Amino acid sequence: MSNTHIQVREVGLRDGLQSIARTLDTQHKLEWLRAAYDAGVREIEVGSFVPARLLPQLADTAELVDYARTLPGLTTSVLVPNLKGAQAALDSGAHVMLLPLSASHAHSLANLRKTPDAVVEEIGRIRSLRDSSGSACLIEVGMSTAFGCTIQGLVDESEVMRLVQAVLDAGADRVGLADTVGYADPLQVKRLFEKGFAVAGHRLACGHFHDTRGLGLANVFAAWETGIRRFDTCTAGIGGCPHAPGASGNVSTEDVAYLFASMGQPTGLDFDSLIALRARVTGWLEGEAFYGSVWRAGLPKTMQPQAVGTACA
Amino acid sequence: MSNTHIQVREVGLRDGLQSIARTLDTQHKLEWLRAAYDAGVREIEVGSFVPARLLPQLADTAELVDYARTLPGLTTSVLVPNLKGAQAALDSGAHVMLLPLSASHAHSLANLRKTPDAVVEEIGRIRSLRDSSGSACLIEVGMSTAFGCTIQGLVDESEVMRLVQAVLDAGADRVGLADTVGYADPLQVKRLFEKGFAVAGHRLACGHFHDTRGLGLANVFAAWETGIRRFDTCTAGIGGCPHAPGASGNVSTEDVAYLFASMGQPTGLDFDSLIALRARVTGWLEGEAFYGSVWRAGLPKTMQPQAVGTACA
Repeated sequence: MSNTHIQVREVGLRDGLQSIARTLDTQHKLEWLRAAYDAGVREIEVGSFVPARLLPQLADTAELVDYARTLPGLTTSVLVPNLKGAQAALDSGAHVMLLPLSASHAHSLANLRKTPDAVVEEIGRIRSLRDSSGSACLIEVGMSTAFGCTIQGLVDESEVMRLVQAVLDAGADRVGLADTVGYADPLQVKRLFEKGFAVAGHRLACGHFHDTRGLGLANVFAAWETGIRRFDTCTAGIGGCPHAPGASGNVSTEDVAYLFASMGQPTGLDFDSLIALRARVTGWLEGEAFYGSVWRAGLPKTMQPQAVGTACA
Repeated sequence: MSNTHIQVREVGLRDGLQSIARTLDTQHKLEWLRAAYDAGVREIEVGSFVPARLLPQLADTAELVDYARTLPGLTTSVLVPNLKGAQAALDSGAHVMLLPLSASHAHSLANLRKTPDAVVEEIGRIRSLRDSSGSACLIEVGMSTAFGCTIQGLVDESEVMRLVQAVLDAGADRVGLADTVGYADPLQVKRLFEKGFAVAGHRLACGHFHDTRGLGLANVFAAWETGIRRFDTCTAGIGGCPHAPGASGNVSTEDVAYLFASMGQPTGLDFDSLIALRARVTGWLEGEAFYGSVWRAGLPKTMQPQAVGTACA
């Protein structure tokens, strides 16, 4: 991971779509995927290898992986809940499998029907499976509810760090910290990511933030300050959390692109293309809740190409 | 100014109301003022001493100052555009007069029909007037468009710092930096406030941010990191900028209160009272655009009094 180049992983096709009831048809998903790629996104979480009866919205994940793998330079990421899903991910040829592990015991039991330590054991089995398959698919653990939990409330930071160490010991290639329910504040983000770097070094490789209470971008900035350069984002900020009525979803791709562009940090993303994609996605999903801010006001004059270096009037 | 206690100045009655066409009646303004005070706000910008023909929305400023001065411990702040307004502020008994000075020459000419240096001269005259009156009213300069300008585009940081020094030399007691049009990013905020502290020391005493492009709270956090402990905020984030269609207004009081509460930084503000005030204000101003996030999702379980210290499952 470069120390300066910002990497954005578009997760709308998974985290976004799994949170809404309707199913977006495969053709539109493929258009979304392609448009994100054309806008400069170089990692996309295209779906999840969970049973289709649980998440019919994501039943076409293998088809999306097939298409994503045809796009040069694109890292194809899929979510995998267990060993069976890992086998499907390996079969699909995805480049990264994201394994969720809830730092909150209560959330882990509710969401995966396993304790966090049982998930750690499953990660060990997935590592063995990956190694014996000869695949180069990276195993990334997404440490969810790392900043608090809607069921359990507080999640002890030392427990989060114990689990970070445990998943690395079990064979994860890298780990990210996720504010699944939008509880994090920027000071907490700095504290936990600094602790995370002390445990995991460069293997701490992703920040995942929801904008439930308006602090999404402040938390992205705080994580960036600790050295994180890779972030999960979602076009139009769709998603939300079934446990938090009225809550918004992941930080929006457009806003995160704007944040880093305004800070002079290269992302490789084309702002106008992201705004155009947002318009298409919100059209396809009309009636759902959308979030994000910068699409309303557009780029400031100071960031418009024709204005750079000018000082009219 | 304490190094730890966060001071929030509610500016909705001035910056918020001056940006919308309709006039809120005085009785509702008094209720707003009182409810903000009851929620723990200890500084309120109640209006502006500008000619009523220019801003009929704020014609009752003197009446609001009269009432505000009856509330123990409340600092009453008014905006003042020139010497005549300063005389009115002194006559009213306000505790702070806020003098806007646009760091952008183009904005200064458009907004005040004066160059920034002509405004600096006026500040000198206002200082003489204040001193000769025997009043203890503080003279605070709000350095607007300090982070960029919708008319001029870029505003040179060295020009901002030259003007900070100039207004202090002219007799301002303190100065704040304002992102009037929502152009600032958190790195720029850190850079400019650090430069500002080097020039003005503790007399750099306010951060004023708009949430036009989603970075409002990230910018508040960045300014806090440099040592700023006093911020302008607006109930329900009303306001906006006539030069930026679709743009939102000041950072919302509720969201800023939540940001600092979540960071464990005392503000003296009661969250539930602020949310209740938001509901009243949005009712009075039905049809206007409102902003802010935390009112939708409410406080996280980790911040609800009954949940502190518990870890249910």
